Amino acid sequence: MPQQQQSLALSEDQLEALNKTLNYGMPEHTRQMLNSLSAADIAHLLESSPPRQRSILWKLIPVEDEGDVLNEMGEEVRQFFIDQMNIQELISIFEDQDVDDIADILQQLPKQITYRVLDSMDYQNRQRVEEVLAYPENTAGGLMNTDTVTVRKDITVEVALRYLRQHNSLPQPLDQLLVVDRFDQFQGAVPISDLLTADPSTLLADLIDHAIQPVPVSMEDTHVAQLFEREDLVSAPVVDESCHLLGRITVDDVVDVIRDEAEHSIMSMAGLDEDEDTFAPVLRTTRRRAVWLGINLITAFIASGVIGLFQETIDQVVALAVLMPIVASMGGIAGSQTLTLIIRAMALGQIGKSNTTWLLTREGLVGLLNGLFWAIVVSAAAMVWFDDQTITLVIGLSMVINLVVAVLSGAMLPLVLKSLDIDPALAGSVILTTITDVVGFLSFLGLATLFYT
Amino acid sequence: MPQQQQSLALSEDQLEALNKTLNYGMPEHTRQMLNSLSAADIAHLLESSPPRQRSILWKLIPVEDEGDVLNEMGEEVRQFFIDQMNIQELISIFEDQDVDDIADILQQLPKQITYRVLDSMDYQNRQRVEEVLAYPENTAGGLMNTDTVTVRKDITVEVALRYLRQHNSLPQPLDQLLVVDRFDQFQGAVPISDLLTADPSTLLADLIDHAIQPVPVSMEDTHVAQLFEREDLVSAPVVDESCHLLGRITVDDVVDVIRDEAEHSIMSMAGLDEDEDTFAPVLRTTRRRAVWLGINLITAFIASGVIGLFQETIDQVVALAVLMPIVASMGGIAGSQTLTLIIRAMALGQIGKSNTTWLLTREGLVGLLNGLFWAIVVSAAAMVWFDDQTITLVIGLSMVINLVVAVLSGAMLPLVLKSLDIDPALAGSVILTTITDVVGFLSFLGLATLFYT
Repeated sequence: MPQQQQSLALSEDQLEALNKTLNYGMPEHTRQMLNSLSAADIAHLLESSPPRQRSILWKLIPVEDEGDVLNEMGEEVRQFFIDQMNIQELISIFEDQDVDDIADILQQLPKQITYRVLDSMDYQNRQRVEEVLAYPENTAGGLMNTDTVTVRKDITVEVALRYLRQHNSLPQPLDQLLVVDRFDQFQGAVPISDLLTADPSTLLADLIDHAIQPVPVSMEDTHVAQLFEREDLVSAPVVDESCHLLGRITVDDVVDVIRDEAEHSIMSMAGLDEDEDTFAPVLRTTRRRAVWLGINLITAFIASGVIGLFQETIDQVVALAVLMPIVASMGGIAGSQTLTLIIRAMALGQIGKSNTTWLLTREGLVGLLNGLFWAIVVSAAAMVWFDDQTITLVIGLSMVINLVVAVLSGAMLPLVLKSLDIDPALAGSVILTTITDVVGFLSFLGLATLFYT
Repeated sequence: MPQQQQSLALSEDQLEALNKTLNYGMPEHTRQMLNSLSAADIAHLLESSPPRQRSILWKLIPVEDEGDVLNEMGEEVRQFFIDQMNIQELISIFEDQDVDDIADILQQLPKQITYRVLDSMDYQNRQRVEEVLAYPENTAGGLMNTDTVTVRKDITVEVALRYLRQHNSLPQPLDQLLVVDRFDQFQGAVPISDLLTADPSTLLADLIDHAIQPVPVSMEDTHVAQLFEREDLVSAPVVDESCHLLGRITVDDVVDVIRDEAEHSIMSMAGLDEDEDTFAPVLRTTRRRAVWLGINLITAFIASGVIGLFQETIDQVVALAVLMPIVASMGGIAGSQTLTLIIRAMALGQIGKSNTTWLLTREGLVGLLNGLFWAIVVSAAAMVWFDDQTITLVIGLSMVINLVVAVLSGAMLPLVLKSLDIDPALAGSVILTTITDVVGFLSFLGLATLFYT
């Protein structure tokens, strides 16, 4: 138990201690501390370190652990290390790795190096890796592992147990035996728990759990994740179009898909990549952020352009300049609430033709009611502040207009973007801001121009 | 395989079909379709339906399935249904449910009803549920289940297998046997895969995998999730302070924690709750969103107040009103990028004393470089547009100031908020917007006032 707590406190106390030994130039001490950590902990430590410490730490890791550590790392940090390796080092890190993990790393390497690494493998391993590489990374095929324990359905529990005992080790986690015929055609799965409770003379055929369905190799990884979540799966068999067993997907890889998917939504709303290295160096970070700032600057200039149309009105009534950001910003907030709700609902697979109309109507009404309510509040405040009936009326009206437009845009944008195959989490907020700014300034200043001239 | 695809397409085709049968008033038909779905699918269907359909669908679900369906539901939607149930119905849904699931639902009920439901249970079940209820929902204790398979370490593999065979069914997923002494003190765990490959005469003591450490009952659920992710666990034993085995946590519940955590970040950034019902009715939605809009209106008024200080300058140079939103909005974007990055890094446990200084320096430099770069771009554009050297200088300077302040605030806010025990995802963006708006308008209009008067 104390050991457990230590391992979890890594992120804080142990990280401090390690950094001290590093800063005080005690590499031997650091090496010893690293030896007591799991590959996942070391990977976490590297990901939590600025570039200089990262390079020093990497050199202190035993060569035979490098592959395990790379496997546990995020893509961008991993890229940093594999870029510095020569072909011999790369080949050595692939020894003793799972086929799906090898494929993951190979996909990050230049084509030419991939071929040389594959050449270095023995025939069987090479074939297995190439099989996984043949499928896109974001499908069941890209997620699957080829080490499965298969049995025939005409054997008894006793024979199956004896067969398992002949193995030196079994693939982890082992929650079911996969039943195939002699053509490797998938026949069903027998849960290990049923195997353990059944009478030894029972035929496996009678233990097949028909609720366990195989996953088609082309299924999208996010769908696989939904399936695992809904059915509480630990592993699932993967088959091709003619139902041949190709491998199986395990829950640990699915957990990574779920985490990646969630991070993708959060990060892309801020124009960041989910694999973004927290400790990326200054210049790389500056360059990447600059792109997003540039895109948003276009939005800002469009909004300014709209204001520019009404310079004369503002010149006449300067209070308009004071109040105009309120209308735009309230629209932005209302719209982004709807946008976030709809993006999440889409990710959960809750949106279909049958309920879109209901949702749009609901959002429209919510926008209208909140628009009316806050129009009264803001108008009252404007009246007190500037004692001007026209401005009070104008800001109230434009609040209602902008809030209704904002929630309807927030609700429709993700649907439209998805149908155009554009990522709503990435593009949604920029487009929405453009809409709420333009409509906010246009309705407020436009109405003001009408009423004042 | 076709069956599998059908179950996954539920969210679209089947959902449409079901809605048609509902809208055309064919309840018998709908009932039959519902019978072919799993509890998770029915829960998903209810969550994807507007209120009216939801109530009709619920009535068509067989009473004996209601408990399973409720278990698979999000909290807010579940609350809707349990609010409408009487005590007898509530008692009946708890039959055949797992202890941790019962505890989950009970925590949503008023205290008085919880007692009456507990009274209705037999002694053993009641005790188990009360044990889980004793621990906070967001700890290992609240996540755990009490049905474990325990063995003594002095028995052989053969005896263990015979013992398992005496069970009618074993808890799922069964990846390890937990070894305890006669005082229920945790001694270690034996992976099922080792049990299956070992010689029948081996003692379990020799098969204990010492890498498997128990989880303390008070560990936070997000830490449990990190542990499962890092160590690729399927289940983990839970112990009290004196190392007594209390139960175990399974990966399916951990997946829910990961999903909830991720949704919490996304949703709270827009002032929404992660349990928010996508199809909540108009009035409830309006009321909740109004709160967030109100909070943001305060921000907007603060920004307006700042502009109000400079009415005279704007009256003199109306171009200032046209350009001022650019400075504020670029600051907002730059700040929210940093904020998002740091909130994610904190969730991943990457931030500690040792690297905060590095991060703040990096962010400051990135803000400065991007500030300088975009200052040049925006100044050039302003020069072309208004042909005014003062405004060109003022907007450039204020861009640099606001971008540096924005990234530093974005980086420090989550750390400060967390140390004050305030959720950075919820409060971070509002406070950040206030800062970037105030600093943006203040620096731009303030400098303009200095230079023009």
